[in-house]
Amino acid sequence: MTPILSDVMAMKMTVETLLKMVSDQHIDIVVGIESRGFFFGPLLASRLNAGFVPVRKAGKLPSTTIAEAYDLEYGTDTLEIHADSIKKGSKVLVHDDVLATGGTAKAVCRLVERLGGEVVQCNFLIELDFLQGKEKLDGYQVKSALHY
Amino acid sequence: MTPILSDVMAMKMTVETLLKMVSDQHIDIVVGIESRGFFFGPLLASRLNAGFVPVRKAGKLPSTTIAEAYDLEYGTDTLEIHADSIKKGSKVLVHDDVLATGGTAKAVCRLVERLGGEVVQCNFLIELDFLQGKEKLDGYQVKSALHY
Repeated sequence: MTPILSDVMAMKMTVETLLKMVSDQHIDIVVGIESRGFFFGPLLASRLNAGFVPVRKAGKLPSTTIAEAYDLEYGTDTLEIHADSIKKGSKVLVHDDVLATGGTAKAVCRLVERLGGEVVQCNFLIELDFLQGKEKLDGYQVKSALHY
Repeated sequence: MTPILSDVMAMKMTVETLLKMVSDQHIDIVVGIESRGFFFGPLLASRLNAGFVPVRKAGKLPSTTIAEAYDLEYGTDTLEIHADSIKKGSKVLVHDDVLATGGTAKAVCRLVERLGGEVVQCNFLIELDFLQGKEKLDGYQVKSALHY
């Protein structure tokens, strides 16, 4: 991912590719997942005229949060979002760099929905097809720029 | 910081303010510091037609890195940058959300200079004046959008 970011043309082409995946769907909020979802999330939000909301690991956000646990290979981890960050009925684009098993993205979708938001799309730069993360995100629109 | 990001107008005004601080200086690379420097760093890079390079905590970057330690209140921590991320002679904008004691930014300036880059400006959203971080960055151009 860092070679894409360090080359301004590659970075800009990547933004255009990610935006095309959203096509003409209205988006109120882009949610980016710590921390590699922070690279393109605000860029997408700015271009979509949407706000940007970070989902962070436990204990990193300064205000009142809600939390979701998700499974790791061994054990679990926790993600948090600010409790006042998404208004009811908001159309939300969930963005991360890589879709692997889908556990992280699924937890983020639950956080968005607990706040009353509607997940319009789960949007990834790269999808690792062999890990079948798309199945865990059944019922959501899942789009990825690159597949491996 | 999150209220600025979640309001698209506030986010866009913040980008314009940060860009005005750079005025017409040529920038090849924007370096953003993990992880709150990742929110506006790529946005600035895109608008400046510059590449974006992340500085991350130890062990997070996948390729060959160089490292610098910096002092915390108790003990030290380490920051890393990809060894091939900055070409010699590159004009670099160092960006982070907050300038506190300046220890982090100083370590990042050293990383940039060890790779042969020239730090054109240290660029912050907020500067905590009473911590005198600007003194630690003596010799660098330091600009902040807000002072507390």
